[in-house]
Amino acid sequence: MTAAGVSRCSTFTLLRGLSTTVPLSQGVPGAVWKLGKLNHIAIAVPDMERATALYRDVLGATVSEKVPLPEHGVYTVFVELGNTKLELLHPLGDKSPISGFLQKNKSGGMHHICIEVDDIKAAVADMKAKNIRTLSAEPRIGAHGKPVMFLHPKDCDGVLVELEEA
Amino acid sequence: MTAAGVSRCSTFTLLRGLSTTVPLSQGVPGAVWKLGKLNHIAIAVPDMERATALYRDVLGATVSEKVPLPEHGVYTVFVELGNTKLELLHPLGDKSPISGFLQKNKSGGMHHICIEVDDIKAAVADMKAKNIRTLSAEPRIGAHGKPVMFLHPKDCDGVLVELEEA
Repeated sequence: MTAAGVSRCSTFTLLRGLSTTVPLSQGVPGAVWKLGKLNHIAIAVPDMERATALYRDVLGATVSEKVPLPEHGVYTVFVELGNTKLELLHPLGDKSPISGFLQKNKSGGMHHICIEVDDIKAAVADMKAKNIRTLSAEPRIGAHGKPVMFLHPKDCDGVLVELEEA
Repeated sequence: MTAAGVSRCSTFTLLRGLSTTVPLSQGVPGAVWKLGKLNHIAIAVPDMERATALYRDVLGATVSEKVPLPEHGVYTVFVELGNTKLELLHPLGDKSPISGFLQKNKSGGMHHICIEVDDIKAAVADMKAKNIRTLSAEPRIGAHGKPVMFLHPKDCDGVLVELEEA
């Protein structure tokens, strides 16, 4: 990521497109766990029927039925995008974890991203060793029935990042 | 998406996991274009080196070099996640389209999602017919050298949605 590298890439990239032309560097977490694919993007929505209709009827995506997850305080609808999915979230009950978000973001908005890991305990131990704050001390069972951990947005460029054991 | 359908799914889903158990319904856009996969999630970051280090050195992902795109007013770094990618964005120049976003979101945050379509002109015509506002009258050439169109966040649950012709 030198200045020379940046200017070398610039014109070439604009002509040919980024994905096949920019040099890549593989991260080395120095740990026994591995980061996997993007599981989903969670979007908090004020009106689930309207949001579902947007993706199903306007954009033509395949969507799930609305599923209540009372233990997590949300209704969910999944939007299939082929390589990953959107998770539409709407509050269920008085203590929904997304109510505050929707009060601040009346139109809705992107709430978190979920990336898979192969070993959540090893990943969490590594996060702590590298001073990335987590929202709970230990992994919990998430909405998909798998152990998850949320990383603090302040340590992730303002993004709430969920790690889920795949 | 009936009430009966919802309650039928609830317990089953919690036990078995969502992705294989919830009934799906295929959207019918009634048009000649098709929605494709998620191309990327764009994240605006206040410190590109720190953000790159998070994904490369802490999470162990493969990342690109930093590429300046002066015509788009951003530096970009791509984070490969196997099935899709994150696009880290940092302002370049005085008129960067993400400067305002970072002023409102000092820590950074999710800026937009990009979904592929097979025919951008047909998709845009369909959006207009269905009263989804777009941020420009016609598709423009995006950061990957392909025609793109941004949909208005107010019509997409607070999410800035980019459609890109794949």
